[in-house]
Amino acid sequence: MSLARGYAAHSHTDPLVPFEFERRAVGPDDVRIEILYSGICHSDLHQARDDWGGSIYPMVPGHEIIGRVTEVGSNVTRFKVGDHAGVGCMVDSCRHCDACEHDLEQYCAEGATWTYNGRERESGAPTYGGYSDHVVVEQRFVVKVSDTLDLKAAAPLLCAGITTWSPLRHWKVGPGQKVGVIGLGGLGHMGVKFAKALGAHVVMITTTPEKGADAKRLGADEVLVSRDAAQMKAHAGSFDFLLNTIPVGHDTNPYMGLLKREATMCLVGVLTELDPPLTGGSVIFGRKHLTGSAIGGMAETQEMMDFCAEHGIVSDVEMIDIKNVNEAWERMAKNDVRYRFVIDMATMKDAA
Amino acid sequence: MSLARGYAAHSHTDPLVPFEFERRAVGPDDVRIEILYSGICHSDLHQARDDWGGSIYPMVPGHEIIGRVTEVGSNVTRFKVGDHAGVGCMVDSCRHCDACEHDLEQYCAEGATWTYNGRERESGAPTYGGYSDHVVVEQRFVVKVSDTLDLKAAAPLLCAGITTWSPLRHWKVGPGQKVGVIGLGGLGHMGVKFAKALGAHVVMITTTPEKGADAKRLGADEVLVSRDAAQMKAHAGSFDFLLNTIPVGHDTNPYMGLLKREATMCLVGVLTELDPPLTGGSVIFGRKHLTGSAIGGMAETQEMMDFCAEHGIVSDVEMIDIKNVNEAWERMAKNDVRYRFVIDMATMKDAA
Repeated sequence: MSLARGYAAHSHTDPLVPFEFERRAVGPDDVRIEILYSGICHSDLHQARDDWGGSIYPMVPGHEIIGRVTEVGSNVTRFKVGDHAGVGCMVDSCRHCDACEHDLEQYCAEGATWTYNGRERESGAPTYGGYSDHVVVEQRFVVKVSDTLDLKAAAPLLCAGITTWSPLRHWKVGPGQKVGVIGLGGLGHMGVKFAKALGAHVVMITTTPEKGADAKRLGADEVLVSRDAAQMKAHAGSFDFLLNTIPVGHDTNPYMGLLKREATMCLVGVLTELDPPLTGGSVIFGRKHLTGSAIGGMAETQEMMDFCAEHGIVSDVEMIDIKNVNEAWERMAKNDVRYRFVIDMATMKDAA
Repeated sequence: MSLARGYAAHSHTDPLVPFEFERRAVGPDDVRIEILYSGICHSDLHQARDDWGGSIYPMVPGHEIIGRVTEVGSNVTRFKVGDHAGVGCMVDSCRHCDACEHDLEQYCAEGATWTYNGRERESGAPTYGGYSDHVVVEQRFVVKVSDTLDLKAAAPLLCAGITTWSPLRHWKVGPGQKVGVIGLGGLGHMGVKFAKALGAHVVMITTTPEKGADAKRLGADEVLVSRDAAQMKAHAGSFDFLLNTIPVGHDTNPYMGLLKREATMCLVGVLTELDPPLTGGSVIFGRKHLTGSAIGGMAETQEMMDFCAEHGIVSDVEMIDIKNVNEAWERMAKNDVRYRFVIDMATMKDAA
């Protein structure tokens, strides 16, 4: 056991405050990581506020973790002390179901163990996330992080990165394809970077014309303003794939109209109701697909980290001190961040 | 030109009444067909009532047509006088778009020409359907019908048949798969027959336990009552494919929960809003697909007719005289038919 220091919410109405708790001892397959940087994901706020129900308090959020290995168990071969390492949304899964055997731990039939707001499989103890000074994780759920990456800007790759990378790879986005990324936030800005790096013709689809210039800076070839009926009509039936990063319920029908026959729109942001509702006609006429994707498996997360190192891809981040995390959440709720807050966990030392 | 006799609706509130109109002369690529049997599809009622908007009156409904060839144009090679022939939902398309070139005329980029309630591509004249004594159709949109089939029971194959056959084939339903057919009506009863003939393990999914015995007679291996939470839970995550034939808006979320990871539910019945709405979580958790399918292409329709001849598959029908068509529509609206009304068009001679 080791004493950890972090920030926690004690109820769905409380701000985050300093919190001390125990991390488990390093087991034979575990890696202990000193956390250097912790990204702030919109789902941190949703879960702290109990928007999805079932939240466990006290809650230490954070699932975009970059750190340095400080201890390894006797069976650990992939890491040594001093390596840079990353931890994302999961820290465990059943490891024997069909999904786990296919490196799709995120779809574990028994349910993956989430990095925070979950329970450890054996002890049932709550899991605590990355807004803290260190973490202990089984090596299967830790990825290697190249020293060539800008580490602080690499933190959001662990959630925003893999959440957009996985569907782009699974649906084989690449050269010769016209791909739309809907919504320019933490997920969307990574979607644009990845789709471009994979060779597609990338169209940023946004309600906000003002985001156009930034979208092009990030790599978009075109910008489509979804509130402009003439632009929507000009692009009708022309997309090979749409990555929809909108995090709240919205009308998906106009976007389905942008797809070619038999093409796919993949949701990665919205878990709740698609309201106003999808019509049957939106999928029937043209045999189109509406699908979704959750983060990615661990092998795929490593693949993404390696791709990012090779292509020099990281997130656009704004660094904050841990003591300013509550203000950062308020700004994130207003979409006032380009495009991801990352906590410099060195500031934990000064936080009281 | 030839004088045709049929039944038409003159407004969205009028009953069907006898109606005389002109059919075009047989062109070089046309086939003239004496109509023997005409199936009654629920969409006939929707369109006569203008439920989907844009209806053209007078309207002669009917797109499940079986008849005998009485004249062929000079270029026609696939048919000769005396052959049995079928006409479904389309009588023309642009023939040069990507869809048409891939034998998917139903997804024609310019819009297919529907058998009734449409307009001929060149003249712009309204199209009139199968509740009539004869029809003139370009040979590409006519299928051969084997003399070994029960012709009157083959009529519904042209819509209810192909609408269920096409998705089962496209998504490669076959042996070793657990396939659910949701809803037991005109479409659903064909879906069960085809899925069984294709070798799948077939589960009829219905709100109505009383339909169970009939579903098994039609070929279902199991019956799942969707209002029974315990049964739904027992089947959760177990289906390879779901064919959803429900013709009205409904909650699709419980059905998505029945799918295996990465499996597909295909809508074929409902064009309107899926209300209550689908949630993003229903597709995100398990990377599942919601899709849809509209009838089928002409090559595929011929493939289905040949399969039916080989396997002795037809619809379960109830024959009616044309003079009773309004009563049949009323019964159909109450779902009081097992499973398709077919008009014996020989009775047109006695109709006023």
